[in-house]
Amino acid sequence: MSDYKHPHQDAEFVLNELVGFDDLCAANGFDDINFELASAILTEAGKLGSEVLAPLNVIGDNQGVKLTEQGVEETAGFKEAYQQFAEGGWSSLIADEEYEGQGLPNVLCTAVNEIWQSANMAFALCPLLTQGAVEAIAHHGSEELKQTYLPKMVSGEWTGTMNLTEPDAGTDLAAIKTRAIPNGDHYLITGQKIFITWGDHQMTDNTIHLVLARLPDAPAGVKGISLFVVPKFLLDAEGNPGVRNDVKCVSVEHKLGIHASPTCVMSYGDKEGAIGYLVGEANKGLAYMFTMMNCARQGVGLQGVAIAERSYQQALDYAKERLQGTNKDGSRFAIIKFPDVRRMLMQMKSATEAMRALAFVGAAEVDRAGRAQDEADQRRHQARLELLTPIVKGWITELSQEITYLGTQVNGGMGFIEETGSAQHYRDARILTIYEGTTGIQALDLVGRKTLLNKGEALAELLAEIEETVVALSKHEGFAEQGAALREALEAGNTARSWLLENAAKDPAAAGAVSVHFMMLFGYLCGGWLMGQSALRAQTLLDAGEGDPEYLKAKLVTAQFFSEHLLPRTKASLETIQKGSASIMALSEDQF
Amino acid sequence: MSDYKHPHQDAEFVLNELVGFDDLCAANGFDDINFELASAILTEAGKLGSEVLAPLNVIGDNQGVKLTEQGVEETAGFKEAYQQFAEGGWSSLIADEEYEGQGLPNVLCTAVNEIWQSANMAFALCPLLTQGAVEAIAHHGSEELKQTYLPKMVSGEWTGTMNLTEPDAGTDLAAIKTRAIPNGDHYLITGQKIFITWGDHQMTDNTIHLVLARLPDAPAGVKGISLFVVPKFLLDAEGNPGVRNDVKCVSVEHKLGIHASPTCVMSYGDKEGAIGYLVGEANKGLAYMFTMMNCARQGVGLQGVAIAERSYQQALDYAKERLQGTNKDGSRFAIIKFPDVRRMLMQMKSATEAMRALAFVGAAEVDRAGRAQDEADQRRHQARLELLTPIVKGWITELSQEITYLGTQVNGGMGFIEETGSAQHYRDARILTIYEGTTGIQALDLVGRKTLLNKGEALAELLAEIEETVVALSKHEGFAEQGAALREALEAGNTARSWLLENAAKDPAAAGAVSVHFMMLFGYLCGGWLMGQSALRAQTLLDAGEGDPEYLKAKLVTAQFFSEHLLPRTKASLETIQKGSASIMALSEDQF
Repeated sequence: MSDYKHPHQDAEFVLNELVGFDDLCAANGFDDINFELASAILTEAGKLGSEVLAPLNVIGDNQGVKLTEQGVEETAGFKEAYQQFAEGGWSSLIADEEYEGQGLPNVLCTAVNEIWQSANMAFALCPLLTQGAVEAIAHHGSEELKQTYLPKMVSGEWTGTMNLTEPDAGTDLAAIKTRAIPNGDHYLITGQKIFITWGDHQMTDNTIHLVLARLPDAPAGVKGISLFVVPKFLLDAEGNPGVRNDVKCVSVEHKLGIHASPTCVMSYGDKEGAIGYLVGEANKGLAYMFTMMNCARQGVGLQGVAIAERSYQQALDYAKERLQGTNKDGSRFAIIKFPDVRRMLMQMKSATEAMRALAFVGAAEVDRAGRAQDEADQRRHQARLELLTPIVKGWITELSQEITYLGTQVNGGMGFIEETGSAQHYRDARILTIYEGTTGIQALDLVGRKTLLNKGEALAELLAEIEETVVALSKHEGFAEQGAALREALEAGNTARSWLLENAAKDPAAAGAVSVHFMMLFGYLCGGWLMGQSALRAQTLLDAGEGDPEYLKAKLVTAQFFSEHLLPRTKASLETIQKGSASIMALSEDQF
Repeated sequence: MSDYKHPHQDAEFVLNELVGFDDLCAANGFDDINFELASAILTEAGKLGSEVLAPLNVIGDNQGVKLTEQGVEETAGFKEAYQQFAEGGWSSLIADEEYEGQGLPNVLCTAVNEIWQSANMAFALCPLLTQGAVEAIAHHGSEELKQTYLPKMVSGEWTGTMNLTEPDAGTDLAAIKTRAIPNGDHYLITGQKIFITWGDHQMTDNTIHLVLARLPDAPAGVKGISLFVVPKFLLDAEGNPGVRNDVKCVSVEHKLGIHASPTCVMSYGDKEGAIGYLVGEANKGLAYMFTMMNCARQGVGLQGVAIAERSYQQALDYAKERLQGTNKDGSRFAIIKFPDVRRMLMQMKSATEAMRALAFVGAAEVDRAGRAQDEADQRRHQARLELLTPIVKGWITELSQEITYLGTQVNGGMGFIEETGSAQHYRDARILTIYEGTTGIQALDLVGRKTLLNKGEALAELLAEIEETVVALSKHEGFAEQGAALREALEAGNTARSWLLENAAKDPAAAGAVSVHFMMLFGYLCGGWLMGQSALRAQTLLDAGEGDPEYLKAKLVTAQFFSEHLLPRTKASLETIQKGSASIMALSEDQF
């Protein structure tokens, strides 16, 4: 089993050189926060991740979870790890100081979160979901709800869950059937929710469920969905967990991966109805969910970075240790000497770096959009945030499949054996293109709400910014080829944008048919853009004699590799996009 | 759980229209065999596959196998299924009539084999490995060995295994350490073999192991490896299983997939030494293995077709059943209406058809190369067979990963739940790019032995033949675009070939570094070539009013889709190839 070590140099390079962390803090009112502090936080998080969470990853995979009469029992050791996590203050990094949070920038929390997700993705889903529930209450709940629930959720004393999906309402939330009946100061909730991550466990003495349900007089469809807080244990007069509420986990799913993360079927109101409290106004539940969507989706994109990094580290260890060839003197050498093994490792390393760059740059837009003083700035960053989010989620998680696939491939026959550990990363990664909106949903969001709705303006601004990097690369003799490659990819992006704007109106199936290729094209383009910037920054630092030259020289190579091996895919995507929907829609259902 | 149904129309289309089955039989001395008989055999096999083997697939995945004091216990129900399989004569299709075989063409056996592999890949590995052992003995064993072992192996009364790998000798068989000491008319074998598929089970009353080992005076490396027959039970004077030999399974691997196929660690000679019989001459074991390699590797390529087909059928069923959207009248519709779901299904269908076409065309070359009357013909078909084999194995199995991935994706959240069944196909498929030579090994074989060694001549002949299809498509108004797309892919192939010939000599890392992209490029090109031929044949039949018009029109669409969605990848591969090894080899090992 391979150890996990946080790639702190690369995380810090992205924060400093691509995000401009200190400038971001200064410009957005994070007054006492700077890169030095960020670096210290990352170092501490790296220790907890490597020493406490990472060793539990394989144990969680093997043991999984168990549903007993007392509810879901998590993997042995998780409770202690969770307590250490909460006591270390790691649950409270991002929340407002008003609710006992530390109010750190989202981009720093994202960099820290990469560590938890790499070390133990199944474990890390629990605080990730809690953070979502905290945001929902913080943004939309009454002052009373906030004061009642937030401090203990922020401290990690209680966890939170998100209850959206039902057996007949997955992507299509309009079909939600769970009912909420007014009953004095609260509501009685009845219904079944599925795919509820960490829906039950014994790690904390309460769990706060956020639940979408319909009021009796609610309009049909998405406009009739409300959001409720439903605690596992009702609070007594002192605000402590008391009587058990009428909600329980009735089964846990048997899944391909993330075995240690209980995926629960939750039953509300088997007896008298589960007591719930309305969040905000009635019938606005779905809108409230949408306000959290950027962070939630970027969080899953980040999981793609994290699992790719972990898989890479495992494969690299194996490639350096596994002797396969024989030298002329009879001594043996490790498989990392073979060009094709190096190709796979380079693909993993280079792609993971590009994914990390995009994930952090996207995360920084959350800070900028949320805090910009100037209204025009705010609008600009909000537009960029919304544009990047489906790319962060869609492209990164799709690419993470390829990376974890290569991770097992580097291991050869051992990659197929569970004890080696690589297969777990491959299995765990598989959920990422599915939950929090499938790849198809991300792609539809990108072509629809994020492009067609604004007539491609947001995309045009991004393309113009990428052009600046093209120009900077092209001016530099050492990067002329990378500049040319990025220009070709940029042209593919421009052409794809125009094609979409022109054809979506003519052919109702066009946008949906080309959407995933469109999203992947822009993912590779953004990756190439940020790797191009990385190369320029690395060269500047090298020229100035600053930084670790071995790391910076390696960055030049991974940027070149990205340009040579991954950017050309933009053109294949474009070619496919330009064919439109014809061959996709031509068959009758019976002809399939 | 989705049922399995053999896609007989497509299998028969490929046999008739691309392979030219009747002509192949007539020209190669398969006198009593024709398409009508083949079709009847496929129909019968389809029944056994659907009714008996397919329902055991998920049971095997759930139960797996167990090592007890009596040896490996296979999944309940497998023994009865195996007996039905053997009694139906399905073990003996390909073997020579001299040893009680039915002497059917390899291409027909391949079409039948697709059914077993789709229905239950873990089960079907057992007869597949037996077939390999039969071939080894039939081609290289003494008359006595053949008479003693072949009839019962051919009938399926006994199974066979292939014992190559050791803990320190995987791809690098030169490192084999298992010893064979001469002892009268036999040898005493001592050593450990790993990754032995179906190395032990209780389905038959004997298992015949083919084992690579070294004689005491053998030269070092690959030139000192000999091949032995080691039966699990020694035969008595009547040729029936008697005393237990000194060989046993000491553990079974815990694997990502194919749970019902026991992957054994076999221990030879824990006591006095396992009794083994030399096959052919001493020190020629590896050469003997190589003579079986084309069939074995094509067999794994075929598994890629089979698992892709099964995954497609599962996803299609789900897409037709799963209601997600709502019509204006309030009724709901299935997700197959969504363009992006159709894109995924089309990708699965179109790629699987192309893979099947290439697998069968490659399999037919085994018949032609083995039976051609004319020496020039024989050489030509042998060269084509050897050229296509690494593409059949490498490209198809790589593409099968993408197809089974899409299969789970179509299922959305349910795809991650094991009970849905799609995840099993995804896990089972993962072994295919690893065993029988990883993708990297196939690619090296293609660029090295199959291209550089003959100065690209075999590839040039293939490219010239593809040109004929380009010309035929281009002449036909309806296929002008497909012709143009295939021409571009062909040019990419020509350019890649020239690049390799030119650069391999200059840069020792070049061939290895570009090999996988090179192999994938030729895979997509071959797929496009055969789908182009398919479109032309389908149109000819439609014009003549022959065949099932719905099937033939669908073929026109899948060919168009392949041309639009998969062929463009050839250009991205070419672009990457032309960058050579620089960015792949630039990092020091410490910089990774």
